[in-house]
Amino acid sequence: MKIALAQINVIIGDFEYNLKKMKAFIEQAKAQNADMIIFPELATTGYPPRDFLEFKDFISKAESLIENLKSHSKEIAIVLGTPTVNPVIEGKDLYNSVVFLYEGKEIYRQHKTLLPTYDIFDEARYFEEASTWDIVEFKGKKIALSICEDLWNLGNENPLYTINPMDEMMKKHPDFIINVSASPFDYNHARERIKVLKENVKAYQMPIFYVNHVGAQTDIIFDGGSLVLDNKGNVLKELPYFEEKLEIIELEKTFNQNPENQQDKNKIKLIHDALIIGIKDYFDKIGFKTAILGLSGGLDSAVTTVLAVKALGKDNVRVLLMPSQFSSEHSIKDAVDLAKNLGIRYDIVPIKSIFDEYLKTLNPLFEGKKFDVTEENIQARTRGNLLMAISNKFGNILLNTTNKSEMAVGYGTLYGDLSGGLSVIGDVYKTEVYELADYINKDKEIIPIHTIIKPPSAELRPDQKDTDSLPDYPLLDPILKLYIEGRKGPDEIIQNGYDEKLVNRILKMVNRNEFKRHQTAPVLRVSPKAFGMGRRMPIVAKYLE
Amino acid sequence: MKIALAQINVIIGDFEYNLKKMKAFIEQAKAQNADMIIFPELATTGYPPRDFLEFKDFISKAESLIENLKSHSKEIAIVLGTPTVNPVIEGKDLYNSVVFLYEGKEIYRQHKTLLPTYDIFDEARYFEEASTWDIVEFKGKKIALSICEDLWNLGNENPLYTINPMDEMMKKHPDFIINVSASPFDYNHARERIKVLKENVKAYQMPIFYVNHVGAQTDIIFDGGSLVLDNKGNVLKELPYFEEKLEIIELEKTFNQNPENQQDKNKIKLIHDALIIGIKDYFDKIGFKTAILGLSGGLDSAVTTVLAVKALGKDNVRVLLMPSQFSSEHSIKDAVDLAKNLGIRYDIVPIKSIFDEYLKTLNPLFEGKKFDVTEENIQARTRGNLLMAISNKFGNILLNTTNKSEMAVGYGTLYGDLSGGLSVIGDVYKTEVYELADYINKDKEIIPIHTIIKPPSAELRPDQKDTDSLPDYPLLDPILKLYIEGRKGPDEIIQNGYDEKLVNRILKMVNRNEFKRHQTAPVLRVSPKAFGMGRRMPIVAKYLE
Repeated sequence: MKIALAQINVIIGDFEYNLKKMKAFIEQAKAQNADMIIFPELATTGYPPRDFLEFKDFISKAESLIENLKSHSKEIAIVLGTPTVNPVIEGKDLYNSVVFLYEGKEIYRQHKTLLPTYDIFDEARYFEEASTWDIVEFKGKKIALSICEDLWNLGNENPLYTINPMDEMMKKHPDFIINVSASPFDYNHARERIKVLKENVKAYQMPIFYVNHVGAQTDIIFDGGSLVLDNKGNVLKELPYFEEKLEIIELEKTFNQNPENQQDKNKIKLIHDALIIGIKDYFDKIGFKTAILGLSGGLDSAVTTVLAVKALGKDNVRVLLMPSQFSSEHSIKDAVDLAKNLGIRYDIVPIKSIFDEYLKTLNPLFEGKKFDVTEENIQARTRGNLLMAISNKFGNILLNTTNKSEMAVGYGTLYGDLSGGLSVIGDVYKTEVYELADYINKDKEIIPIHTIIKPPSAELRPDQKDTDSLPDYPLLDPILKLYIEGRKGPDEIIQNGYDEKLVNRILKMVNRNEFKRHQTAPVLRVSPKAFGMGRRMPIVAKYLE
Repeated sequence: MKIALAQINVIIGDFEYNLKKMKAFIEQAKAQNADMIIFPELATTGYPPRDFLEFKDFISKAESLIENLKSHSKEIAIVLGTPTVNPVIEGKDLYNSVVFLYEGKEIYRQHKTLLPTYDIFDEARYFEEASTWDIVEFKGKKIALSICEDLWNLGNENPLYTINPMDEMMKKHPDFIINVSASPFDYNHARERIKVLKENVKAYQMPIFYVNHVGAQTDIIFDGGSLVLDNKGNVLKELPYFEEKLEIIELEKTFNQNPENQQDKNKIKLIHDALIIGIKDYFDKIGFKTAILGLSGGLDSAVTTVLAVKALGKDNVRVLLMPSQFSSEHSIKDAVDLAKNLGIRYDIVPIKSIFDEYLKTLNPLFEGKKFDVTEENIQARTRGNLLMAISNKFGNILLNTTNKSEMAVGYGTLYGDLSGGLSVIGDVYKTEVYELADYINKDKEIIPIHTIIKPPSAELRPDQKDTDSLPDYPLLDPILKLYIEGRKGPDEIIQNGYDEKLVNRILKMVNRNEFKRHQTAPVLRVSPKAFGMGRRMPIVAKYLE
């Protein structure tokens, strides 16, 4: 039996586009004599469709897509995820289902049992969990159909659920497992995915065909990396990351012991590639072509600009250099050097005259108060306004260049440098931004070396350095990581050897600046705990403040 | 038996403050010889604590608070909600529990069964549901302890859950029901709450003591309105809305047939009062005293300013009038009149010179392109920048004045008039803002009548009117409401008698502007479906676009 894995990049709610995409993959699979083609979880709607699921109109469009697909299932079985309506009045209105289409009909439908409701996931918000389980028979084989999380309750020290749907399906003696997934990327995830699938093979002693989404849906990036594990738990095939792919595997091969066959899992390479598809898909899927960003001569805007150029092409990225009286000469030179290295358009737009005009207008109201963060913010907001003006005039999207360390402690100006339609490196700590820069420069110096080695500065007052207000990043970042990714309290962090006063000061900064993060752009998620929908914090609160 | 209902306003994560508050209420109740005092759901942590629940340190602080309360329970039973740790490794780590403290000990603990996971609620994200049920005996009475949603699966056409925990508890023959709640305000909610409790009395034939939170937690406002229903389902007592209150009720009274005793439920009055406590608590709980806002002479900023003055006092609100060359003479007069009526400080800060300086700076980059939305946005953003400058210099919070109709269709400038720390009327449609203005003016003309009767305009280009780009609000608002509150698809809305082209245009505007709403301030929630955490939409999507 030939089984086709269809690792596709769909658009949420674009049923016409998604159907066309699936039909093209089906045609390809048929041309290669596949018996079956597998698409990911909620392939009809895209993932996550969020509250669109509450619209009957949206669900009926997904149902129409399935109707349409049936007619293409005459010679090939089509397996895919889609929302289906719960026929019973009690409970949630929908199921998250996998349907098995063949010979023009729906042969079987299995609902998802384990509904992830943590981090970015909200499935219990929409779906009722499965309460019956069966297998589907196809060409003499018995197949257990599962959906993503259904296989993830094994091999955890702290399982989130009290049951395993596969235990139920085992009563029907399946020959192999299909898992349709929507399993978002983070830099650890591909490894965990393989570990979890291996645990399942160990427990159930049969091969697994695992098909994931690929591509970015706003902030959430799917890496693909679809998998076939043989019945010994070896990776027979891991599909590439960050690209669409149709792969055909002979079922028979999965009953042999195969050598491991995995993709490169270098953390910084993965982040690099993820951010590029994150930018690309954001633009492609909303129909924009060109980006603008402010280039300061510093590291964050340099790395963001390089990633934008890789995603969109050098003709589609332009930058503004917006020096003030506090900008150093080398900043402008570093920025110009980068723009020239990349071959992108740059314009130098000094902000002094506008800044002065603000001060003149505000002077009567400032009551003789001294230069403080207000004047720093006016500069940052003037720059934001200039960038948005070009963005509005020419239809560019402004990319935000704030890193995760800054986002965490609120080191940035709301409506100023925190502006932008998409935050590219808002889930990348400053120390990781350095690693990204080294990765970018690995073959030749694209980012000027001076940008990398000089001390970070916002240049909003004379001789300012980040370290005036923040600890060194190599000290700050691990504390942030223990708090944000690790969800450790102050005592636990201090027990890791960090100074008590410093820890308390940092956690307070993180919590106090929730209001800023509430108003910033969606952040491309590359870590297990990114700012955004996956981290939900009260704004008005007094915990650790 | 004397039962005290403690309708309290706590601060999320401020365990010290919350304990002090509870102790004060306990002392009062003791002084009045109460046998028992009831606090709301998750009274220790405040509601919603969101992902703070994932921090062990946070949970152990809630546990310490309970330990401390036990010593106060020697002569009075204390009933309250708190998160508790799930002792079993399988399933979520926490329960949402109600604990019954007496004679210095925890006598009983009941976990919540029905975990709301819709709109603003995320309880399945954190909590395991109850699987055992019992009653607690106290002074010869058997009491069924329930938590908020536990009673809400009755009397619905479309029940969200497949069980009712009260059905289980009935096996133990309780005498009455206690319900500790965190049931947020919307303008329909008090009515629904009473309807649901009456359904429960009808089903279970016993009195109910229902205790709710009061006060705002960022965007979510609790109205209080705690209730005692007698065993015939009559409202023996409904506590006031939007204020803290200790009320003592004799249990024996609830076994007589009492006359109905309800609070005023006028929709506009409720919204008015809710917004005031929403502003007040936002400032009080983060420790700010003063607000700033831009006063345009239009209706939205006028209504917002009045509400701010009512919440914070006239000495704590200041406004900027920021006319441009496109502002009409009457706008300035209307704004000045309002400021004078309210007795608040106003400053007139013309933006022309800054605007001109922007244009001068940008002119070489604009390549001779015509005046368009870019120049409109520059004005709005200059105003935003001026307001934020005063806010930064003097420690005011900028209040946002955008209404729900504008938020919905994206009629507003990101980083301009969409700026602000808190959106006051972002959940109030324009047609309702008119009603609020009439309500404010019911006894005397506070808002100048000319502000109310003139056609709405952003005044960003010559002779601009809102109706240049939008349908009249009395036509727009009902369509928005069908889509946003009603979650109707285009066909269903058109079947309500609206023009197809218009409907499609409006829904497209709503969906296309999700990116703006993603970056705006928290919106005080007064309707059953507000923008914010309760409405989760993809940003990059193609549904109805």
